[in-house]
Amino acid sequence: MQEIRYLDDLSVGMRFQSGPITVDEAQGIEFARTFDPQQHHIDVTTAPFSPFNGPSISGWHTAALAMRMLWEMRPFGDYPIIGRGVDELRWHAPVRPGDALLFHGEIVDVIPSRSKPDRGTIRFRLTATNQHGDEVYSALCLMALPRRVPAEVG
Amino acid sequence: MQEIRYLDDLSVGMRFQSGPITVDEAQGIEFARTFDPQQHHIDVTTAPFSPFNGPSISGWHTAALAMRMLWEMRPFGDYPIIGRGVDELRWHAPVRPGDALLFHGEIVDVIPSRSKPDRGTIRFRLTATNQHGDEVYSALCLMALPRRVPAEVG
Repeated sequence: MQEIRYLDDLSVGMRFQSGPITVDEAQGIEFARTFDPQQHHIDVTTAPFSPFNGPSISGWHTAALAMRMLWEMRPFGDYPIIGRGVDELRWHAPVRPGDALLFHGEIVDVIPSRSKPDRGTIRFRLTATNQHGDEVYSALCLMALPRRVPAEVG
Repeated sequence: MQEIRYLDDLSVGMRFQSGPITVDEAQGIEFARTFDPQQHHIDVTTAPFSPFNGPSISGWHTAALAMRMLWEMRPFGDYPIIGRGVDELRWHAPVRPGDALLFHGEIVDVIPSRSKPDRGTIRFRLTATNQHGDEVYSALCLMALPRRVPAEVG
């Protein structure tokens, strides 16, 4: 059990990191069959002729792995990870079965709520690089966090 | 086998739709165990006390279902769905097991490449509404598409 980290504990520039995680081929095929059944994700025999020049996992599988690694890191403690949304999500290069992905995070904004003094939002950039050091994924994530509620003044 | 639709065939304001798809509880728990193992996604007994006031699937599961429904629609024909990225992804409300989601798409931009005459990018807004008509998910998707290559002038 980790401590909860409040919005007040965080500042722009804080970094965190998780991984590497190895991309599992069977899990990649299973994910694609369920959510993204394109030939180049599920059939290794035709994948070399795909636009990605070889087998690649679904981009949404990479995004789901990013969520898993964020949960592994829990840089903000054990408070639920309440995602409000994501901006600037980009798939920079194909992710291949067997790739080892490292995830890096950096807080870029800490935004107290104007109307509700007990909460706020942080914005952090999450990126994934493969074993060659190539950036394959990045996203700007918005997450809700609680603030330390100030003691009432009597 | 559908025809490929080229960038040249598309215009701003074109709409498409798919669903409803019913959110499966077992699939929701399985997805969460693998990618987002937070208590409120995997344990129905404690979910009522979660920030989402009841069981809810992972937001990334909703995003993966959106990919599946885009594949079902294939509004741009049988060309591979090459996602460049996503902007303004938002989870507006919890998605519950048993919810029936309808997906709507609308093209908002058609952008020929400046440097490569055989390709371009479209931008479309994809939204999901539940059986109550509430919007639960929206995203602005960027996708690569081929252009009709003009005949060479002799």
